[in-house]
Amino acid sequence: MRIAILLYPGFTTLDATGPYEIISRLPGAETVFTAKEAGPVRNDQGNLALVADRPLTEVTDPDIVVVPGTGDWEPVLRDRETLDWLRAADATSTWTTSVCTGSLILAAAGLLRGRRATSHWLALDLLKEYGAEPTGERVVTDGKYVTAAGVSSGIDMGLSLVGRIAGDRHAQSVQLLTEYDPQPPYDAGSPDKAPAEIVAFWREEMRRTT
Amino acid sequence: MRIAILLYPGFTTLDATGPYEIISRLPGAETVFTAKEAGPVRNDQGNLALVADRPLTEVTDPDIVVVPGTGDWEPVLRDRETLDWLRAADATSTWTTSVCTGSLILAAAGLLRGRRATSHWLALDLLKEYGAEPTGERVVTDGKYVTAAGVSSGIDMGLSLVGRIAGDRHAQSVQLLTEYDPQPPYDAGSPDKAPAEIVAFWREEMRRTT
Repeated sequence: MRIAILLYPGFTTLDATGPYEIISRLPGAETVFTAKEAGPVRNDQGNLALVADRPLTEVTDPDIVVVPGTGDWEPVLRDRETLDWLRAADATSTWTTSVCTGSLILAAAGLLRGRRATSHWLALDLLKEYGAEPTGERVVTDGKYVTAAGVSSGIDMGLSLVGRIAGDRHAQSVQLLTEYDPQPPYDAGSPDKAPAEIVAFWREEMRRTT
Repeated sequence: MRIAILLYPGFTTLDATGPYEIISRLPGAETVFTAKEAGPVRNDQGNLALVADRPLTEVTDPDIVVVPGTGDWEPVLRDRETLDWLRAADATSTWTTSVCTGSLILAAAGLLRGRRATSHWLALDLLKEYGAEPTGERVVTDGKYVTAAGVSSGIDMGLSLVGRIAGDRHAQSVQLLTEYDPQPPYDAGSPDKAPAEIVAFWREEMRRTT
């Protein structure tokens, strides 16, 4: 079970490392972080780099592809080499997945046309521009395409994938070992639950900056 | 608000990146990943390296210290340079924190003597050997020491810290932006909730390997 996790400058850390921590515990998993060039790839905040151990050219035929998101998606949506690699990887993958605005990258590669998909709540509408059908669910599966909502949702996606691939018992083991028994001290994790003025503030920020 | 996240060979990825993704969004946060030597530090699984941007010697007086855990804690518990740095950083920190078996490292540095603390459920008993008082809660605060349970619990700890430092409103904003509205597809994230035979299996594994 070969797992390829895509890195590119400006990726959001937890989008990549959340599902990584879960699905890399699949039986027989061989997980590789990959980017256009091997070496450190700096994240959206600029204060952390993850190392891509292999360049895209050396990562062929993965069984699972994971595409993290970013708050600055324009550069990667225009990056032909990354989109070409994604299409080639998708041609043979069993599961093609994304977290957060990673779904915009899948969509820009033409992989979500006519498919139900999700994204960060602030970016849902943008999915339509690439012919996907946005939905507000936390994890959306349409055929072999699994998209997750914002940032932290990749953990739920990962656990759901582990269950489908290796069975409930293995998924429960992974959940127990990662002690994934979430107890958030607030209940503001979605636009339906957060105080309305906070939601409105960020919608306005989004309008202002994009 | 200077945040130092400790890296060492064999750290568990999500222990470090979970709280990172949350607390690095504190107002005015300056976050640095640090290790004995600057450069890539490989994780427990060996298939991912995070870059420590600065050596421990250059990271002095952090306001918040975060210590991730590992499944192989013996080397770091014996590492005098890391423990010395931790004691020095703790001497001036506002918050000294850990995720998972990171609390064993805090305890080995002598920082949890007589304090209530938590750890990965499989390692709770070990805390006693260093004079801490283990408790099964997910996030435990005793004075300025905040310890979190296994792996994923660092996200809850991070959000709790953001609330204490920057107020509920800011914490709710961070929760909304990271879409932390967890919906695990299973309910096996703690030894109280997981099927008994899975818990027994891992307890036996723990006995066999330590």
